[in-house]
Amino acid sequence: AKLYKAAAEKAVETTAKPANLSGYTRVKQELVAPPFAPAHEQVATGGPKIIEITMETTERLMVVDEDTGASVWALTFNGSVPGPLIICHEGDMVELTLRNPADSMMEHNIDFHASTGALGGGGLTHVYPGEEAVLRWKATKPGCFTYHCAPGGAMIPYHVAHGMNGAVMVLPRDGLKDKDGNPLRYDSIAYIGEQDYYLPKDENGEYKYYETAGDDYADSIEAMRTLTPTHCVFNGAVGALTGENALRAKVGETVLMIHNQANRDSRPHLIGGHGNYVWEASFTESPMQDMETWFVRGGCAVAAMYTFEQPGVYAYVNHNLIEGVLLGATAHFVVDGEWDNELMEQVVAPRAFST
Amino acid sequence: AKLYKAAAEKAVETTAKPANLSGYTRVKQELVAPPFAPAHEQVATGGPKIIEITMETTERLMVVDEDTGASVWALTFNGSVPGPLIICHEGDMVELTLRNPADSMMEHNIDFHASTGALGGGGLTHVYPGEEAVLRWKATKPGCFTYHCAPGGAMIPYHVAHGMNGAVMVLPRDGLKDKDGNPLRYDSIAYIGEQDYYLPKDENGEYKYYETAGDDYADSIEAMRTLTPTHCVFNGAVGALTGENALRAKVGETVLMIHNQANRDSRPHLIGGHGNYVWEASFTESPMQDMETWFVRGGCAVAAMYTFEQPGVYAYVNHNLIEGVLLGATAHFVVDGEWDNELMEQVVAPRAFST
Amino acid sequence: AKLYKAAAEKAVETTAKPANLSGYTRVKQELVAPPFAPAHEQVATGGPKIIEITMETTERLMVVDEDTGASVWALTFNGSVPGPLIICHEGDMVELTLRNPADSMMEHNIDFHASTGALGGGGLTHVYPGEEAVLRWKATKPGCFTYHCAPGGAMIPYHVAHGMNGAVMVLPRDGLKDKDGNPLRYDSIAYIGEQDYYLPKDENGEYKYYETAGDDYADSIEAMRTLTPTHCVFNGAVGALTGENALRAKVGETVLMIHNQANRDSRPHLIGGHGNYVWEASFTESPMQDMETWFVRGGCAVAAMYTFEQPGVYAYVNHNLIEGVLLGATAHFVVDGEWDNELMEQVVAPRAFST
Ligand SMILES: [Cu+2]
Ligand SMILES: [Cu+2]
Ligand SMILES: [Cu+2]
Ligand SMILES: [Cu+2]
Ligand SMILES: [Cu+2]
Ligand SMILES: [Cu+2]
Ligand SMILES: [Mg+2]
Ligand SMILES: [Mg+2]
Ligand SMILES: [Mg+2]
Ligand SMILES: [Mg+2]
Ligand SMILES: [Mg+2]
Ligand SMILES: [Mg+2]
Ligand SMILES: [Mg+2]
Ligand SMILES: [Mg+2]
Ligand SMILES: [Mg+2]
Repeated sequence: AKLYKAAAEKAVETTAKPANLSGYTRVKQELVAPPFAPAHEQVATGGPKIIEITMETTERLMVVDEDTGASVWALTFNGSVPGPLIICHEGDMVELTLRNPADSMMEHNIDFHASTGALGGGGLTHVYPGEEAVLRWKATKPGCFTYHCAPGGAMIPYHVAHGMNGAVMVLPRDGLKDKDGNPLRYDSIAYIGEQDYYLPKDENGEYKYYETAGDDYADSIEAMRTLTPTHCVFNGAVGALTGENALRAKVGETVLMIHNQANRDSRPHLIGGHGNYVWEASFTESPMQDMETWFVRGGCAVAAMYTFEQPGVYAYVNHNLIEGVLLGATAHFVVDGEWDNELMEQVVAPRAFST
Repeated sequence: AKLYKAAAEKAVETTAKPANLSGYTRVKQELVAPPFAPAHEQVATGGPKIIEITMETTERLMVVDEDTGASVWALTFNGSVPGPLIICHEGDMVELTLRNPADSMMEHNIDFHASTGALGGGGLTHVYPGEEAVLRWKATKPGCFTYHCAPGGAMIPYHVAHGMNGAVMVLPRDGLKDKDGNPLRYDSIAYIGEQDYYLPKDENGEYKYYETAGDDYADSIEAMRTLTPTHCVFNGAVGALTGENALRAKVGETVLMIHNQANRDSRPHLIGGHGNYVWEASFTESPMQDMETWFVRGGCAVAAMYTFEQPGVYAYVNHNLIEGVLLGATAHFVVDGEWDNELMEQVVAPRAFST
Repeated sequence: AKLYKAAAEKAVETTAKPANLSGYTRVKQELVAPPFAPAHEQVATGGPKIIEITMETTERLMVVDEDTGASVWALTFNGSVPGPLIICHEGDMVELTLRNPADSMMEHNIDFHASTGALGGGGLTHVYPGEEAVLRWKATKPGCFTYHCAPGGAMIPYHVAHGMNGAVMVLPRDGLKDKDGNPLRYDSIAYIGEQDYYLPKDENGEYKYYETAGDDYADSIEAMRTLTPTHCVFNGAVGALTGENALRAKVGETVLMIHNQANRDSRPHLIGGHGNYVWEASFTESPMQDMETWFVRGGCAVAAMYTFEQPGVYAYVNHNLIEGVLLGATAHFVVDGEWDNELMEQVVAPRAFST
């Protein structure tokens, strides 16, 4: 907290010149729940914008795995894990109103990896229950970037590991490009947040239930020190993106998969597909091509683009398969269209053979 | 298993056009055990090929560490951990006959990261003991790619963590190149599969022995949830590539080291040497140069090229040195040739000194 | 040890041609303690140099965390964790005199990832207490490279995990450049070594104290096998680079952050800033730009360049926030200058709101 005061001090000095906002157009961005993306342009039209958004720091009890009854008092932005995807273009400003509901148990703030100064805004947005703050920052670097709550000290990993993180995508004004400068466009975005939970267990090995947000603090800190998550899930819970909740596409369609992991390394893989274009670093870099499995440095959001060539079900997993399958990091894409026997053919279906 | 049926359904629709195989030449590739590579051309001659290979899903009891007696009922492709290296060129087709011996305990299949559709072929190759299937897929992306068994659910990490994985190298038709387009050629391939095992122990801390493949299932799943392997070994067992089994080269020779890790991140390092050219992503990307230690995103095969400049013994390790030394991930290259004092010289051999 | 003898044998053959050192100028480099860098040129003037340095393998009891009293018998180069930063240019030679004080308990050596042959010099520098050796090697690859003690077998991870590692920076002769060939210069270097410790605890969960270096050997090996560090710290101890020890800079100044991690992956992030230019691989590669969080493959040193745009306190962390906050991997930069409201503004300071 002392650190945050020090970081904030400089930012509120009266000697700093007021910002010149002329030339910017104000627009509102309606945030939507993951795995969806807000309405946006891939190529910016018009001049730079000040994009107004609002987020609430909601604390809610979430079931993480119905099979075991594992639950968590999730700390969230707008009620979802991950928090909503924000999209702007390089040169735009993001103006966030951050509200902490009066019935919250905890203070929250927000650190935008995409921004510059004051601990990514963390020093300027410290809201207690019943408080709001407004932060404006300029998107100077293109790429996908994590944001997360970082209220100070041990509360930083505690809030992040309770779901309080999400992503901003800062598009180049003229959109995404391959290494030769050719435009790359997508038909849809799949916004996937991977969450590592460290859920405390009782002496019988059963996941513990807590009455209120924050009650699990001491147990959680102890669990986190093992560096071994009990769950690695997409979009907050086991099965949040499978079965009825599976993502959908068609052969020939291009999906931009945005993977956010605010804390722990991950290695996404699309079973049966590829990362045709992958931006692990930023959109300033040319995308890497034809990857089997890409990497999310813990504390990053990355983007990977794929055009489906075959119908069927694709699993998108953290390819540490223990994490992908046993700990929960699996999503499904259900893709419609016509099978291409040239790309793959079952020449002989499974049948008995004799030697 | 339901997922696999869904993935398979699309692939066997009768409406799909038959593949046009005219213009392809059929050849057989004799697979060999690691660390060796099958006979192949670095630059493709002639038109595209259909490369016929056969693999058996062999289950066998393997000693992992003679010192401790640790053993595992390895699930394998062709009896080795990793499974054999397959080599083709971009534009070729691979036609695999996969046979599950009648005396197997378990069902198996194969997911090729290099392929497109049906869960990488996993949906089309589900063979029970005594069954065979034939899968053909087209290599459209150049690079080194993992393949592995993925029979569904918790069996996926279980089979992979029991050794059931290997690599395909899809070479560009005109061979490997540096970032300026100059050809890069190798004198030999060292194919190294890193295997993380999670071997169950009894209450005395001794590694457990099991009568049959699959008997360790419940214990293994529990051990895997710790995310902490008991062993990280190259080519199936501690010491499989050291001592009498060390790899051999000469000063001036260029080796292409192919490192497969189907599940867990690794960071290979050649002690006393470098990664002169490293392809972490694919062969579509230019290689990274002059790396001290490179990265294998878990669920990847990568290639690194080095030309030996000094004679002596080189250790090739996973440079998490706990994993490299204590858990087993060490191989040796024994290199013959003449020492170059310009590159390195022992100016003063260890001797007593006085202050 | 047998391996080291094998590696050394080739290097001391009498048939090897003597090195031709004509054309080199001899200079001494005074090594300094981290986080500082020795005096050096960013662009080399004059011809290649033989850079003479001296290091002592000092064993000392260090407090790792004052709060808990956790301590370690650190094994060091020159008394600090990490060992001193060495700087040369591509084409230079480094000539190291390595001295093991007579009162040491253990033998030590040094493996330079930047060098070529004899296990990075490890085979030629095996000094017992009271011994010295002199090694000369040529810097043929530009980049930041780890060096570390590697006395053989389980002693390798033991010595490295007790602090015995550091970094060499081999600059291109004409200095650092961006991808278009434009020069990149820095005003200062922040040399940060991340150390994973695996400190043994007693049956009450208290960190154990040992009388002498090496006494913790058996306990340490057991702790390392968990692959779960008790501490991940910068420059040897919790708080070594925060508070009074924080790093300092001014708005407009450019800092080159050199991060060494000799054993375990890390993912540095500058809270409120970015990696404007990041060299994860080598200086042969163009730097990656605009990264939120970069990656240190375990067993690597990497460089990241940032120009401060806002005043205030910046935290530089391993962005696995459990490791960064709970295990200690946090440093602070205190930056003076004028706040820029255009980049970020606290439009509304935290205040009560009503619905
Ligand atoms: Cu919070
Ligand atoms: Cu952060
Ligand atoms: Cu199998
Ligand atoms: Cu896979
Ligand atoms: Cu040592
Ligand atoms: Cu090393
Ligand atoms: Mg379940
Ligand atoms: Mg820019
Ligand atoms: Mg990013
Ligand atoms: Mg042994
Ligand atoms: Mg292609
Ligand atoms: Mg690969
Ligand atoms: Mg403390
Ligand atoms: Mg060079
Ligand atoms: Mg390096």
